[in-house]
Amino acid sequence: MSVNELSQRNVLILDAVHRLLRRGAVRNLTKMVNKMYPVEVAKALRHLDDPSEKRIVFGLVAGAERRAGVISELDPNSAVAVFTELTRAEQIDILHGLDTDDAADLMGLLPADMATYLLEEMSEEHSGGVADLMGYPAETAGGIMTPQFLAFPEDTDAQTVISYLQEHAADAEMVFYLYVVDAGGVLKGVLSLRDLLTVPPSARLGDIMHAPVIKAGVFMDQEAVARLTARYNLLAVPVVDPDDRLVGIITVDDVIDVIREEATEDMLKMSGTGGEGQYILSVGSLRAYRLRMPWLLVNVAGGIAGAALLTHFSGTLEAMLVLAAFIPVSMALGGSLGLQSSTIVVRGLATGAIEPSDVRRVFLRELRVGALVGLTCGTLVGGVALLWHNPWLGAVVGLSLFSASCVAVITGTLAPVLFQRLRIDPAISSGPLVTTINDLTGLIIYLGMATLMLVRHGAPPAP
Amino acid sequence: MSVNELSQRNVLILDAVHRLLRRGAVRNLTKMVNKMYPVEVAKALRHLDDPSEKRIVFGLVAGAERRAGVISELDPNSAVAVFTELTRAEQIDILHGLDTDDAADLMGLLPADMATYLLEEMSEEHSGGVADLMGYPAETAGGIMTPQFLAFPEDTDAQTVISYLQEHAADAEMVFYLYVVDAGGVLKGVLSLRDLLTVPPSARLGDIMHAPVIKAGVFMDQEAVARLTARYNLLAVPVVDPDDRLVGIITVDDVIDVIREEATEDMLKMSGTGGEGQYILSVGSLRAYRLRMPWLLVNVAGGIAGAALLTHFSGTLEAMLVLAAFIPVSMALGGSLGLQSSTIVVRGLATGAIEPSDVRRVFLRELRVGALVGLTCGTLVGGVALLWHNPWLGAVVGLSLFSASCVAVITGTLAPVLFQRLRIDPAISSGPLVTTINDLTGLIIYLGMATLMLVRHGAPPAP
Repeated sequence: MSVNELSQRNVLILDAVHRLLRRGAVRNLTKMVNKMYPVEVAKALRHLDDPSEKRIVFGLVAGAERRAGVISELDPNSAVAVFTELTRAEQIDILHGLDTDDAADLMGLLPADMATYLLEEMSEEHSGGVADLMGYPAETAGGIMTPQFLAFPEDTDAQTVISYLQEHAADAEMVFYLYVVDAGGVLKGVLSLRDLLTVPPSARLGDIMHAPVIKAGVFMDQEAVARLTARYNLLAVPVVDPDDRLVGIITVDDVIDVIREEATEDMLKMSGTGGEGQYILSVGSLRAYRLRMPWLLVNVAGGIAGAALLTHFSGTLEAMLVLAAFIPVSMALGGSLGLQSSTIVVRGLATGAIEPSDVRRVFLRELRVGALVGLTCGTLVGGVALLWHNPWLGAVVGLSLFSASCVAVITGTLAPVLFQRLRIDPAISSGPLVTTINDLTGLIIYLGMATLMLVRHGAPPAP
Repeated sequence: MSVNELSQRNVLILDAVHRLLRRGAVRNLTKMVNKMYPVEVAKALRHLDDPSEKRIVFGLVAGAERRAGVISELDPNSAVAVFTELTRAEQIDILHGLDTDDAADLMGLLPADMATYLLEEMSEEHSGGVADLMGYPAETAGGIMTPQFLAFPEDTDAQTVISYLQEHAADAEMVFYLYVVDAGGVLKGVLSLRDLLTVPPSARLGDIMHAPVIKAGVFMDQEAVARLTARYNLLAVPVVDPDDRLVGIITVDDVIDVIREEATEDMLKMSGTGGEGQYILSVGSLRAYRLRMPWLLVNVAGGIAGAALLTHFSGTLEAMLVLAAFIPVSMALGGSLGLQSSTIVVRGLATGAIEPSDVRRVFLRELRVGALVGLTCGTLVGGVALLWHNPWLGAVVGLSLFSASCVAVITGTLAPVLFQRLRIDPAISSGPLVTTINDLTGLIIYLGMATLMLVRHGAPPAP
């Protein structure tokens, strides 16, 4: 199916689910639900507003494995809503069907007593891994890894591994690499499936493995794991505990989700939206308001500071009311230019395109850009002010736009760098903060310059 | 190596390369360069300012395969700079060593006559694939696919495929799936390596394959391919021509690059930076200025419009100068709130979290958020204006902030949706455009309301 066919299919599915539900056509609905991809069932569930309808449709999904597939594709709110309504036996079946990392994620969302109860009821084979994973913070390597990996001692031969794979391959979610460990479980080397197929059957893993291995510590931030994966084109990253023992792997499909989530979060943070990226749709208006209001209060505070500033300079304005006309442009240009600089730096730091050693180079580049922009806009708007009113106003507007541009790129470049050194997410600083600082700086420069040039150094000539 | 060790290693490498270059210690440098990962050599090359130093270091990389690895990790500017300095024989060797998709990308960057010459000189085995790929636009499925895939007729048995893999696995870059095609090359089904290992050797592919296959058309936008891959957790997407014949695959490592690039581009576009994401660092100040200036001109135009507006309302300002004090806040709040809404919609549309069927729901949610924000900020800043000056001013400020908030979320939500319908990238609309529109709307509402309430309906009481 191509994308057009797929998106058409989505619309058709949603319509059909609604129609069959209304008609109570359970048999047809069951047939349909069990022919859909799990991700499609999840999408249909998310679109049903009525919780009891969600339950009915989910109840028609046949078999623990399919149900587990649907649950792992649902947004957290819907997953909990659907899961908590099931019988304990059904819940246990689904938990056994989920990948260990997805099971741990789901458990983390449930009420604590329910999670404890379920963990006790699960088979030991599964509960150990889930309990281990639940011990790691959500956005770390430990929090996103799965303990399902293949590791063998150094003196295993290639044929033994191939036979093992033919017997057990179905157990391992995605086998890309085979890891080589010593007797204590310490990670020693890595092999691809391809390596395995192209050596003589008697070859010893210790002799054909690659070392040193690129790996992540359990507490490494998930964004750093994603950078590592992208940078070295890996399909899976091994995760080791502080004693270098292999405890899990992170596969590329989970890395893709991390990359998308982190980019979404950064974008939303930059616009002052709080950054709960993955919940863009499911969050209600009250929660959205609570997440966004704090950042808008930065604007409000800036606005009140601006009001105080303008009151302070009211003598200047009174002497020459036409100055008020250029308040908007002296505010807006600095805000936008600073946002450009800080977006470049924030994104560069996040992707690794800008490293500490690059900061000086980027700073100087931005300063040159700021000067060029200031020159262009200062000449342009200063020219308008000159033609519109008089040369004095033109000079004030032009010079203050130039200075404000230079200040804006400096703030925009340095704020994210500073925040990163302070171990605060630089994306936070980018949007409302940098914009408000530069709005106000623009205003101060403009009014200050006007006061100096027009009021103190001689009364302004009449227009 | 953990991330800390890796980033430390990077700094050490850069220092060592500089030091060895200055000392002319060619033997040590050669040894070092050939022990580094290709991506590390690429990074070191990017950091060398002097083109002749770049050439020296690249010249020390031994063997066409390693050289090809380094070239494929370089940014486009450096890749062309290094490549064009090589002898024709060296160039051909590298082109033969590159994956077909990377070779086509590199050829696309070279001067046309050089590319034509090289294409003629390359072995037929390689040049055909490269020429085919060069025919597709860069940011489509065809432009990022590789023609190196494994496809077999429906009546092949599993054992034949396994034997084939053991002989030829080294040729295929990343084998995740085996595709099943009919006699005309039309894609019929797909199998994972795991499927192959867990069926009897005599099983016929046609009987064990999965169908229908999720696939991309050659002209599908790369962002849509990335969404497809992420949504269905695929490791590779097959690409078909308009007659449904399998012509290539896109592997997950390339999809990761697309996801990162597209997110970077969207962020930069939203801030009005032009959107040449991957060149964040290597672009010079003049080019950066040319990319960013057009969007800042939107601000300048908005600022001049603001100046005209304020001149138009100068009677009102003259009658009550204190109104000027609240110009900044009435501009800034709408701009920021609108940016939040449009960021949510732009990102939601890009990731597929918001689909056409969701627009109404998101719009209503945003409208509620706008009303709540307007109520909060209107009360707050209106209260300040009331205490500071008088109730009239408080009412004007409060009411106009409320109205401006409602208008801002409407513009912010609808602009990206409208742009998408017009097939213009919605990220473009988000930043400078929505912000400027909402800045101006805020100003018009504020001044208009002040004129109506204070000037026409009675003179303002003295503060």
